Amino acid sequence: MDAKLEFRMAEENDLDRIVEMLADDLLGSQRELYVRPLPQSYLDAFKSIASDPNNELIVACEGNEVIGVQQITFTPYITHQGGWRATIEGVRTSARVRGKGIGTEMIRWAINRAEERGCHLVQLTTDKKRPNALRFYEKLGFTATHEGLKLKL
Amino acid sequence: MDAKLEFRMAEENDLDRIVEMLADDLLGSQRELYVRPLPQSYLDAFKSIASDPNNELIVACEGNEVIGVQQITFTPYITHQGGWRATIEGVRTSARVRGKGIGTEMIRWAINRAEERGCHLVQLTTDKKRPNALRFYEKLGFTATHEGLKLKL
Repeated sequence: MDAKLEFRMAEENDLDRIVEMLADDLLGSQRELYVRPLPQSYLDAFKSIASDPNNELIVACEGNEVIGVQQITFTPYITHQGGWRATIEGVRTSARVRGKGIGTEMIRWAINRAEERGCHLVQLTTDKKRPNALRFYEKLGFTATHEGLKLKL
Repeated sequence: MDAKLEFRMAEENDLDRIVEMLADDLLGSQRELYVRPLPQSYLDAFKSIASDPNNELIVACEGNEVIGVQQITFTPYITHQGGWRATIEGVRTSARVRGKGIGTEMIRWAINRAEERGCHLVQLTTDKKRPNALRFYEKLGFTATHEGLKLKL
């Protein structure tokens, strides 16, 4: 890498780039709608996230260019003696930087952020159709102790 | 069942009973601390949940008795065109009512609540050490499409 990777909260004018990255993916291409103007639902979600102190939409930047995105949700639970958890979701990097360790830096950043926020656990689910993603997270210290169940409404 | 099952938001004076149920479980007994007075961390978590409009700690009651608990977290995401998800966690029923369909009614209630809140997906993770729980959720329509990864901090 030439430039240092920097992390910051996403701003509204990053949203176009974020949706572009989410749509540029085997699974994402089937469920996102990257058109201009962006569907209002993306803007509404962005505003809900930005106004919620327990949700952080984080972008990774190389210089002025946004090359990665992830969302971290901090949740208080009664379980584990009232412990907070961090949940990572929607992790994507720009296609042109894949394989350069950007994803690893992003997840390490999220783990540090979870520690700063006093969480006892970081969790995420990964689609069983992405075996490389499972290995990627296992290398970072995660263990696949749970089944991740989904029900579409 | 004799009495009709009713659902409501948990109140602070339900907390003792909630922790009692969480601790009365193979995995829960190893990680909860059900003593009197309750550790302050449980009260702090309760207050964080109660003051967060995107978290609902729900109790199931038979008459005046609390016989079940679950937490539902509503999260706005950019993914899926800015879709909201509901995450169910910390589901427990009283030992004396297990096998009577209370859990099924609880999860159905949570699914309805997720629909009311405009979610497109309900999700949860279940420990691979609980094969019965997996079958329980599959019967309710969930599919185990994802691996659930955890990293303890």
